[in-house]
Amino acid sequence: MANSPEKTKLAVGIVGASGYSGELLVHLLVRHPEVDLACVTSRQHAGKLVEEVIPSLRNKAPGLRFTESDPGKLAADGTIELFFLALPHGVAAEFARPLVAAGKKVIDLSADFRLSSPEIYRTYYGQEHPDPDLLDRSAYVLPELCALDWKEAPLIAAPGCYPTSILLPLLPLIAEKKISSQGVVIASYSGVSGAGKKVAEDFLFCERAESSRAYGVPRHRHLSEIEEQLSVAARETVVVQFTPHLAPMRRGIVSTIVVPAAGHSLQELYQTWEDAYQGRPFVCLLPSGRTPDSHLVVGSNRIDMSAVLDERTGNFVITSAEDNLMKGAGGQAVQIMNLWFGFPETAGLL
Amino acid sequence: MANSPEKTKLAVGIVGASGYSGELLVHLLVRHPEVDLACVTSRQHAGKLVEEVIPSLRNKAPGLRFTESDPGKLAADGTIELFFLALPHGVAAEFARPLVAAGKKVIDLSADFRLSSPEIYRTYYGQEHPDPDLLDRSAYVLPELCALDWKEAPLIAAPGCYPTSILLPLLPLIAEKKISSQGVVIASYSGVSGAGKKVAEDFLFCERAESSRAYGVPRHRHLSEIEEQLSVAARETVVVQFTPHLAPMRRGIVSTIVVPAAGHSLQELYQTWEDAYQGRPFVCLLPSGRTPDSHLVVGSNRIDMSAVLDERTGNFVITSAEDNLMKGAGGQAVQIMNLWFGFPETAGLL
Amino acid sequence: MANSPEKTKLAVGIVGASGYSGELLVHLLVRHPEVDLACVTSRQHAGKLVEEVIPSLRNKAPGLRFTESDPGKLAADGTIELFFLALPHGVAAEFARPLVAAGKKVIDLSADFRLSSPEIYRTYYGQEHPDPDLLDRSAYVLPELCALDWKEAPLIAAPGCYPTSILLPLLPLIAEKKISSQGVVIASYSGVSGAGKKVAEDFLFCERAESSRAYGVPRHRHLSEIEEQLSVAARETVVVQFTPHLAPMRRGIVSTIVVPAAGHSLQELYQTWEDAYQGRPFVCLLPSGRTPDSHLVVGSNRIDMSAVLDERTGNFVITSAEDNLMKGAGGQAVQIMNLWFGFPETAGLL
Amino acid sequence: MANSPEKTKLAVGIVGASGYSGELLVHLLVRHPEVDLACVTSRQHAGKLVEEVIPSLRNKAPGLRFTESDPGKLAADGTIELFFLALPHGVAAEFARPLVAAGKKVIDLSADFRLSSPEIYRTYYGQEHPDPDLLDRSAYVLPELCALDWKEAPLIAAPGCYPTSILLPLLPLIAEKKISSQGVVIASYSGVSGAGKKVAEDFLFCERAESSRAYGVPRHRHLSEIEEQLSVAARETVVVQFTPHLAPMRRGIVSTIVVPAAGHSLQELYQTWEDAYQGRPFVCLLPSGRTPDSHLVVGSNRIDMSAVLDERTGNFVITSAEDNLMKGAGGQAVQIMNLWFGFPETAGLL
Repeated sequence: MANSPEKTKLAVGIVGASGYSGELLVHLLVRHPEVDLACVTSRQHAGKLVEEVIPSLRNKAPGLRFTESDPGKLAADGTIELFFLALPHGVAAEFARPLVAAGKKVIDLSADFRLSSPEIYRTYYGQEHPDPDLLDRSAYVLPELCALDWKEAPLIAAPGCYPTSILLPLLPLIAEKKISSQGVVIASYSGVSGAGKKVAEDFLFCERAESSRAYGVPRHRHLSEIEEQLSVAARETVVVQFTPHLAPMRRGIVSTIVVPAAGHSLQELYQTWEDAYQGRPFVCLLPSGRTPDSHLVVGSNRIDMSAVLDERTGNFVITSAEDNLMKGAGGQAVQIMNLWFGFPETAGLL
Repeated sequence: MANSPEKTKLAVGIVGASGYSGELLVHLLVRHPEVDLACVTSRQHAGKLVEEVIPSLRNKAPGLRFTESDPGKLAADGTIELFFLALPHGVAAEFARPLVAAGKKVIDLSADFRLSSPEIYRTYYGQEHPDPDLLDRSAYVLPELCALDWKEAPLIAAPGCYPTSILLPLLPLIAEKKISSQGVVIASYSGVSGAGKKVAEDFLFCERAESSRAYGVPRHRHLSEIEEQLSVAARETVVVQFTPHLAPMRRGIVSTIVVPAAGHSLQELYQTWEDAYQGRPFVCLLPSGRTPDSHLVVGSNRIDMSAVLDERTGNFVITSAEDNLMKGAGGQAVQIMNLWFGFPETAGLL
Repeated sequence: MANSPEKTKLAVGIVGASGYSGELLVHLLVRHPEVDLACVTSRQHAGKLVEEVIPSLRNKAPGLRFTESDPGKLAADGTIELFFLALPHGVAAEFARPLVAAGKKVIDLSADFRLSSPEIYRTYYGQEHPDPDLLDRSAYVLPELCALDWKEAPLIAAPGCYPTSILLPLLPLIAEKKISSQGVVIASYSGVSGAGKKVAEDFLFCERAESSRAYGVPRHRHLSEIEEQLSVAARETVVVQFTPHLAPMRRGIVSTIVVPAAGHSLQELYQTWEDAYQGRPFVCLLPSGRTPDSHLVVGSNRIDMSAVLDERTGNFVITSAEDNLMKGAGGQAVQIMNLWFGFPETAGLL
Repeated sequence: MANSPEKTKLAVGIVGASGYSGELLVHLLVRHPEVDLACVTSRQHAGKLVEEVIPSLRNKAPGLRFTESDPGKLAADGTIELFFLALPHGVAAEFARPLVAAGKKVIDLSADFRLSSPEIYRTYYGQEHPDPDLLDRSAYVLPELCALDWKEAPLIAAPGCYPTSILLPLLPLIAEKKISSQGVVIASYSGVSGAGKKVAEDFLFCERAESSRAYGVPRHRHLSEIEEQLSVAARETVVVQFTPHLAPMRRGIVSTIVVPAAGHSLQELYQTWEDAYQGRPFVCLLPSGRTPDSHLVVGSNRIDMSAVLDERTGNFVITSAEDNLMKGAGGQAVQIMNLWFGFPETAGLL
């Protein structure tokens, strides 16, 4: 792998691959037709074969070994053009700064650069933002909805799993004022991998199998990201009620969004979606009344979404489903890379 | 069983026991200290040993056999005082009429007598109500919240699984005007047994495992029952947004209810709950911030509930968890019997 | 609870209740009609309400608090007659010695006193047996098959989960020489709770859901217990091939046992079982060809078993199913108590 | 898709795609780099978009529609060179005959052409073989172990899911006489998709979740295929004890095989495996003591296997894991195609 980069391929590295998102990212990049996965780093596993540590990769990445996670050395690497950061929140920024300083491009899967406001970051993460300057130069990219100029940024923040499942349905509607920007109520159900590979009693099989519960009420961290993006689109402050739940499944998120229709019709809603997502390969609009199912999107980078209008309440009920590790993390990061580097949007993702 | 009724015990019968609720009811009644389960009927299985058809009962009901499901014969039975109807909607009414006419008491687990309004029944069930006269004399009994006079009714309708998980938290609050009666948004998440033992592709293991989705949008049948009860308590028409979801687990319901606090404090909410449920053995109020978990109530007749106040939105976020087959069906029916016949409320339920 | 012991009830204590077996034992004993659960100890949780630590007990053991786990103090208690030890292997012996010395009766759910041979203990557990003297005076009790004199022992070792599922089918057959004592091959398939509440990556939901694998090959610790009991029954050394597997379920064990029929008929096998288990409430013999299913015994203290004869190979294929936490642990311990103290065998277990 | 075949690609068709194997096959073939999926047939769904019927394919096969399942018309098609039959047993033969007669190549995923002996077919399937003549000309191809001349056959039978997981470990060992050919005992645990998309009570979510049991004892149909292949390799009649089990997971098979080592060492076993599978991309030999886990192979065409020698019993305990729908069905069929048509063995399978 690392020894035989083809000239025409983009050399990329993954920093941190021991979690579920990182593992999926390795899977996607070893088979990506335009990419040479030149390094995968790990403090803990440096020197070991990647397939020893991530057995699902057996025979898929022969010879690939973890290298040291040294920011300076990575920045000094002469061949790698793009780094994916699959690191815990807070750690990502430590790597981002030297890599960007050395002219590398960075796609960050953590929350470190998702919020544009350091103040909101402080409120939700309980600490000062580690790098406000770089934050200022970074872009938050939902690939289907990004502004024109994001490709100039040195660092792209990939959206979180819950926000992706909520923003893709809502952003075009709120930007086009086809829904009320007030009174939005969201319930999301996530597979347990959304919590990462966290070794804690609460995530043991016997505690989570056959078990559901709400958590993170009333102010889950992803709420800040959701509200910031909605507010930008609405050009006013948007406050939403968001309740995440743990579901007894490994992967997948379904989000159910109730929002006042404010006099708009279901047809207008669908038309707005069609205008926004026409030709986009990873957004699938289901007919009204056909609700998305998480197991139909797991393993895919697709988001399925549909809506009904409840005439009795005057609300739209919008439902979406995505794979939290694909469209909600690693798959979306690859999609961002594809667009950033001029590859076909679906390269390595079908 | 049927051959050795003790004189001091109440002789009861179960009509229809081939579904999940009926099966659980048999489990509860064979070990109930105050009851003699004198008959279990089944058109399909008449003559067979109950434990042949319901293998989880092996060695628990030795000798008990299914008898014919003939309404006339059951009505003519000289010893049985109380019948539980665990039948599909529509079929229950066929049995209720002759049993009540013969002076039997009836606890109905179906939806046939849950709505007081035949008009709403028609709207939601697509047919005329089969017995408006008996409907008029029946009582809908949430045991913790029932009015004083329900014990005179010949037939008690046991509430549905979703409504129980929603009404127990909401009814005292709405009656005491501690929440807004408008703008209620509910997302419920149910185990697959909530759909009954329905042999259809959608309920196959491979279709439901690792899978979540909303369904029944925007007007699930249970909505009518929820709204009718809320409206009675509020003394005005209440319209709510209710979205049920299927979760990849066998049993359990968690409901997440968002409702405007209308200026009330969290303390007022908890005080109202404490006033309503003081001393009631099956309602457990969790401290604010500790969310109920379905697997902690499965197998129990308990409902766990808690609430937070989101200062940002001005909403209460109320969460509850129950076992859909226990507090949501068979357990609640037994609890109703206990209160109706003067047994300890928890008899056979701990 | 602890404050209101009824005079006629047996006062019992549970030492160690933070694991899955201990939790189930509390559930069983708080509702046992002949027992007063006078204390539940925990080093970690002393002083806390039991229902705080074990939320599934909410409202079932009001006021019950964990007390200190001090062997000396427990031994000095004047009221408690029987202690259940639900402790890790090795720790149980530390408590057993002083309790027995003080004249208490002990039912031990750990492996410390299951093997009669200290040498085999050393081989399988990698250390000297902590109390060979007490070991010598202890009895290993499978309630359906125990010898007459076990009730005199001060300490009863309750059998392990895998051994119970294997010994109940095999012991009568091997004692009556209705099967070969050589060439036995066993594959067992256990729910994840069999590993205890062990907080390790391997037992996370995302690692175990949708996942099966063999483990502990070729010499799982329970093998020693299985072989010792079979050898005693056969009056010769019996060596078996035993492969346990983890199954993606919380509770339940199914064991599949292949054993040469040695010329015996299926009828002889069933007749031997019927002779051994006639009238025993927790052994259920299924007709040949109807295989036991783990979910039909979970929550029950029953073991289901059946057998076929494969004419082609000359082997019996015997299958059994039990709940590893009930018949394989806490339920069986209660059954032992019932027989030891002259209560009905099924008391508190139906 | 069907409208834009590239000249250099192989045109293939799938007959019958409504089951789980067929669905996976469509997924594999729409992204296979060497193949044009020219038609997918279905009696039931002819005319419909494939992604309507198989929603997991949304956006992956735009415009692809089911066509009629008419054997004559398919045989007359001028462009399609290879057909995959993903049909129920018995139905496959009806299509195979006319397709082969018309010069088409056929890969059959059913059991119709897996046994070389029509007599054994009759014994296990309860009817005469539908086409003994074509059976005689067909080849049974485990791609890693196939004889040299199989490529001349007009029809290839792809092995069954259980047999693949058992034969890949055993065949080289039995051919090289590194194990006993007698006394083999196999226990296999399969995900529920192994039963196909069968709408029956036994396969409902609530019946299978949290549930395990043996079935098909003592003579599952796949036994005939296993024994026939082992006998050919051993050049003597081999009789094995095979017990399949249902496990509460969607996909995956783990097989545990106990076989007398007959004096051979673990090193000889591993050496034989290495000689047989050197360089084969889909067989992964794990070190002794590291047991394969089904969830690490699900989604992959790989089989993982390892072995231990139990010195006490003189047996090898061999364990394997595969995805029943990939290496056990659709993936293996594609692998066969790759080898048959000279494509890279891993094309479309990584």
